[in-house]
Amino acid sequence: MPTQFDPPSGTRDFLAREFETRERAFALIRSVFARYGFEPLATPAFERLDVLMGKYGEEGDRLIFKILRRGEHEGTGEADLALRYDLTVPLARVAAAYGSQLPVPYKRYAMGPVWRADRPGRGRYREFTQCDLDTLGSTSALADAEVISAVHDVLAGLGIGGFRFSLNSRRVLAGLLEAFAVPAEAGAGVLITLDKLDKLAPAEVTAELAGRGLPEGKAAELVAAMTAGDAPERISDALKSSEEGSAGLDEVNALLSLLAGQLPPGRVEFAPRMVRGLSYYTGPIWEVVAEGVPGSLAGGGRYDHLIAQLGGPDVPATGGSLGIERILLMLPPGAEGHTRLDVAVTVMDQRYAARSFAFAAVARSAGLRASVYLGASGKLGRQLKWASDQGARWSLIYGAAEDEAGTVTVRDMTTGEQAQVPAGELGDYLARGRLKPASRQ
Amino acid sequence: MPTQFDPPSGTRDFLAREFETRERAFALIRSVFARYGFEPLATPAFERLDVLMGKYGEEGDRLIFKILRRGEHEGTGEADLALRYDLTVPLARVAAAYGSQLPVPYKRYAMGPVWRADRPGRGRYREFTQCDLDTLGSTSALADAEVISAVHDVLAGLGIGGFRFSLNSRRVLAGLLEAFAVPAEAGAGVLITLDKLDKLAPAEVTAELAGRGLPEGKAAELVAAMTAGDAPERISDALKSSEEGSAGLDEVNALLSLLAGQLPPGRVEFAPRMVRGLSYYTGPIWEVVAEGVPGSLAGGGRYDHLIAQLGGPDVPATGGSLGIERILLMLPPGAEGHTRLDVAVTVMDQRYAARSFAFAAVARSAGLRASVYLGASGKLGRQLKWASDQGARWSLIYGAAEDEAGTVTVRDMTTGEQAQVPAGELGDYLARGRLKPASRQ
Repeated sequence: MPTQFDPPSGTRDFLAREFETRERAFALIRSVFARYGFEPLATPAFERLDVLMGKYGEEGDRLIFKILRRGEHEGTGEADLALRYDLTVPLARVAAAYGSQLPVPYKRYAMGPVWRADRPGRGRYREFTQCDLDTLGSTSALADAEVISAVHDVLAGLGIGGFRFSLNSRRVLAGLLEAFAVPAEAGAGVLITLDKLDKLAPAEVTAELAGRGLPEGKAAELVAAMTAGDAPERISDALKSSEEGSAGLDEVNALLSLLAGQLPPGRVEFAPRMVRGLSYYTGPIWEVVAEGVPGSLAGGGRYDHLIAQLGGPDVPATGGSLGIERILLMLPPGAEGHTRLDVAVTVMDQRYAARSFAFAAVARSAGLRASVYLGASGKLGRQLKWASDQGARWSLIYGAAEDEAGTVTVRDMTTGEQAQVPAGELGDYLARGRLKPASRQ
Repeated sequence: MPTQFDPPSGTRDFLAREFETRERAFALIRSVFARYGFEPLATPAFERLDVLMGKYGEEGDRLIFKILRRGEHEGTGEADLALRYDLTVPLARVAAAYGSQLPVPYKRYAMGPVWRADRPGRGRYREFTQCDLDTLGSTSALADAEVISAVHDVLAGLGIGGFRFSLNSRRVLAGLLEAFAVPAEAGAGVLITLDKLDKLAPAEVTAELAGRGLPEGKAAELVAAMTAGDAPERISDALKSSEEGSAGLDEVNALLSLLAGQLPPGRVEFAPRMVRGLSYYTGPIWEVVAEGVPGSLAGGGRYDHLIAQLGGPDVPATGGSLGIERILLMLPPGAEGHTRLDVAVTVMDQRYAARSFAFAAVARSAGLRASVYLGASGKLGRQLKWASDQGARWSLIYGAAEDEAGTVTVRDMTTGEQAQVPAGELGDYLARGRLKPASRQ
């Protein structure tokens, strides 16, 4: 039941635990991408409206959050800015704006929120994080292989199990249409239908193909080839008759051989019926699926003319996108719980507040998370309850007895054991590693 | 000269070098705050319009970026959402929404962009990062001291030199008005004028005070007390006649004594004429200035009723805000240059592409940033030029000679020295630390 205090529909607040889980994943992703020599890029949350409109089709245009003009123009009800819808159009703008300042090739990653006025629901948000890596300015298959290999390392590094890459090429698909004599004008529709082979029965797909103007025999033959146990071999054979198809096969095989040494056996496979974002891909395409998980965890491919179409320079490009929100749902649970503090310092009396404050500082200097008690109670039990609620491993207690003895009591919150440490030696005591940080950060 | 490819007015693209400088600062800030037991909070970029409107005064309302309703309502020109204007109103909403799930006290920090439709100019942006830390639910002076101490550690950790804290209290200011018999209705105006003592001559301030209805003798006396060399002492004496002023002085002295042990001598001083955000502060207030830098680097104070006024629960609160964008401009230049790669791997022939790709993977496994050459040239000179442009410390060369000898050439890009390493031993060679990462990430 939403209340007036909930975040806007389709958006989320991230409190500490979830924030830290996400940040740990983001940090791993950044470090993998950096190891491959991809550099970060951050662009503003909004772009000028004309930069975004018309780039995502009619449906996309409708889902763009538009920002009202300000000041005297507010009354016009017109928009001049819009929240970014993805990270690719901003990349095209950046490639156009900073052309000669960018390295060649330009290998960049971007990770940040995008906004879509979609109907919120089951895992679909209006504000969600996208994570893209792309190489502009290289036609080499090595560039495609780097992207795939980096995505692999991210998923493996995050501890995602049972995932695999499906690999195909836009040119294989073009060759397939040629080999099965599909009329040019029916091509795009036929591919869209073939993409449904995962969801529909072969007979249904055959019927839909026939509806798209394919002779029924041809349609049945095509579906049979695509769904056979030895589909990759049968398709490869069929493609030999097409120059484009043969070139596509070579492209796929070159990539498979580059990746063979890097990825575990069976991690990548040729998937001739895989069709994705067909409208702009021009070469290899790939996606990552995991057993038992609907949809894909990541996907990408080569798109040699898109940057120019989006307003950027005409450069070859290849890249991929991680389905971050979906991947975050799959993360294995962390070993450690949520720890706010390593060391909780009691304040038994306002007279000792400065001493307690100083003990916390000593603990922080030893790299521990430490805080003094900020409540009003002078009762030890109440303060230890607070320490325990914070997940603290140790409490430092300093009251009248300790003040007289010149010591501080170090209490192990797990065992309840207590040690008296001379107040002036607390730093040494902590520095000798007697208190190890329980938290990660 | 702005072009159609520039980011929208008042916003910025962050390419690799600037992004990494900022991220390093952000990481240090997060780690300091975490050491104090502050936990992170992230809220959406936009809030419902009614959550924001009326919270920042008339001028603030005008500067809010409003988001047009979508779908069939788009034509109405009405807004229903708005980009967040600061991080405090979202905090109040979160405190209201998750009350019992939050720890008591709730110590949180937030760091992220906010948006204001201000006229862009000299260091003023429409999209800029704010960084707040606040403690909700504690009336203890220790809570104020923690915030100040954490801000100190951040600035010191970032290498900012010559900064100091000015400390005052809202109650000292109230007592001051009482001690100088300022009529209640003139109080707010008098404080606003006194705040100008840094910019205007004492005589000008005296005249302005007289214009606000203060008897001229009183005005001159007040200005003389505030600008004297021993102003803190004179003000302290004057405040003894006011109960509120005495309480304020006690508050200031308690904080000074808590901080005395933690901050270097002279880092904090009582500044009785410092007035800031007076409208909502209720207790201690402070700000950080640095020599030669106009304005403040950070500021904050206690605001015991603001969270309720902003729609949250009625909890005592204290906090501070770092002027991140200004602080980033003051960062000492980093020691290291911008390095894209540690290891650049040449691709001398497509026949050896898979080997080169594998060598890069071996380097990455050793924690080095590594990439293969993605260009079309087969010339070594060209490829070494690329390696050098990337800032690579080493190149790995694998051509026909190496293929025959079963070695890989490791070239030191600084000295030009080359070593032949058996191909199968490259991993061991790198793991023995022969190549140290030059980059930090």
